[in-house]
Amino acid sequence: MSNHSELALIEWIRQRAQSAPNLQVGIGDDCAVWQPTGAPLLFTTDVLMEDVDFRVDETTPQLIGRKAMAVNLSDIAAMAGRPLAALVGVALPKSRGFDFARDLHEGLQSLADEFHVAIIGGDTNTWDGPLVISVTLIGEATERGPVRRSGAKPGDWLFVTGPLGGSILGHHLAFTPRIREALELHRLVDLHAMIDLSDGLAADLYHLLDESHVGATLLNDAIPISDDARRMNDERSPIDHALSDGEDFELLFTVSPDDGQRLLSLSDAGMPTHIGTIEAQPGCRIQQSNGEVEQLQRGGWEHQF
Amino acid sequence: MSNHSELALIEWIRQRAQSAPNLQVGIGDDCAVWQPTGAPLLFTTDVLMEDVDFRVDETTPQLIGRKAMAVNLSDIAAMAGRPLAALVGVALPKSRGFDFARDLHEGLQSLADEFHVAIIGGDTNTWDGPLVISVTLIGEATERGPVRRSGAKPGDWLFVTGPLGGSILGHHLAFTPRIREALELHRLVDLHAMIDLSDGLAADLYHLLDESHVGATLLNDAIPISDDARRMNDERSPIDHALSDGEDFELLFTVSPDDGQRLLSLSDAGMPTHIGTIEAQPGCRIQQSNGEVEQLQRGGWEHQF
Repeated sequence: MSNHSELALIEWIRQRAQSAPNLQVGIGDDCAVWQPTGAPLLFTTDVLMEDVDFRVDETTPQLIGRKAMAVNLSDIAAMAGRPLAALVGVALPKSRGFDFARDLHEGLQSLADEFHVAIIGGDTNTWDGPLVISVTLIGEATERGPVRRSGAKPGDWLFVTGPLGGSILGHHLAFTPRIREALELHRLVDLHAMIDLSDGLAADLYHLLDESHVGATLLNDAIPISDDARRMNDERSPIDHALSDGEDFELLFTVSPDDGQRLLSLSDAGMPTHIGTIEAQPGCRIQQSNGEVEQLQRGGWEHQF
Repeated sequence: MSNHSELALIEWIRQRAQSAPNLQVGIGDDCAVWQPTGAPLLFTTDVLMEDVDFRVDETTPQLIGRKAMAVNLSDIAAMAGRPLAALVGVALPKSRGFDFARDLHEGLQSLADEFHVAIIGGDTNTWDGPLVISVTLIGEATERGPVRRSGAKPGDWLFVTGPLGGSILGHHLAFTPRIREALELHRLVDLHAMIDLSDGLAADLYHLLDESHVGATLLNDAIPISDDARRMNDERSPIDHALSDGEDFELLFTVSPDDGQRLLSLSDAGMPTHIGTIEAQPGCRIQQSNGEVEQLQRGGWEHQF
């Protein structure tokens, strides 16, 4: 990509960006200027790298851009926040040209539009290296405050917002971040602790337990297994995929038993699913349908490729 | 670098990070949570890439990390803002190991400490690709508001905060971002427009003129030339280096003639330097000592390597 098309791309991004309430200066000055409303702000950043988080030749630039925005939205969802604004840094391989770069940004922008996120700044570069995309997302907490990983209490019920496993077959690129679900849950019940499933259930559950200084027992037969986990067709079982695969981007959360009952009574939305219980005893156990209890290994996604 | 040392690095970063006023949740949850004070917030992001912005074998990891923080601080300085918090995303080559990654973060953290910036979040990854560092910096405007590129008026005097050119000899890695100078200038005078010199004087001046819908005439003999520009010892003259080289990271700004006189009378600090005048006539001219006036070409840094 020439310098001329690099400038054309930046101009395209500037035109395409939506404004936002309280945005005083958007793309085009040394910094964006934005007037906060007064609510506590949420900040998260994720870097996606070619051949680690996606393969350019197995997908579209739109889906790669979409994923870069989606994984950050998932972090805001994990605290039950409202997303507001994003900054996007990219290192674009020169060889892929202008259309590729525009399509990548179109993917970023489309998901930003869907969740009313203003792209307020960025840094667009070309180089001879592989594709790297870095997104920083700013959100705000609702009146009920951010939901942390550390608030789980013994006796809490564990829930998950959707089926797990096998995301490598496509879900990891096309998932919808659980922003709306998190805000709705936060309105309905008192969320004690929450995390998004990026490293896999067996890894992220341990993160939540560690931060809350508690343990848990999962009910093996209650864990929702995705169709993709059943389609994986390798030496691992579908439940093993559901426990260990990364990038489901569903939410794992805990509530009091009363609120848990309440959620089950409202289950016409089809989710969430009750998958276990928080306990004072450290570590994590998994109970089979025959009543046998095993230790759940700390584990999950390392490298899918 | 193994997964074990990746986790050890994240823990090291978490321990090393300083807290900040109003920071409710720092590194270690899905998002950082930070309560803004109410002032307008400034946001900027920059991505540094191996062999484009630095060469690993010609410098130290500390200086690379330092530069990644410094270029963002320079953007906050360009709006005369106060830096507050940063998020750091890195793609680390596995081959370079733990000590390299820790030293890189030490460079980032040291400059953050110097300017009271809290590192509130990040994303640390290893891969088989080259080193990429992405920093997003959050600042706030002072009571006098952010200084934009667009406020220059015909008759304004143009100033620059330091000598220019030849930064490739080392200044581009070791420069001190002009945060303190910008805040002091903003207190002393009414800054009409400001930009930091990242692409080179002849390029960044045009950015300021374009946004302000004005032109300018520079005084050739008034432009401060750095010792490094004189040491370049190539086919280009020192003044050409001062006009065209990138990454000086000095500030270029305009004030009324009265405020300009005022700054000159306070010049015991050794800077800034008066280098020209804003005019209604579009374009940019440069006046030689013999009175001859030439058009200044739009130009500056493209690739130093």
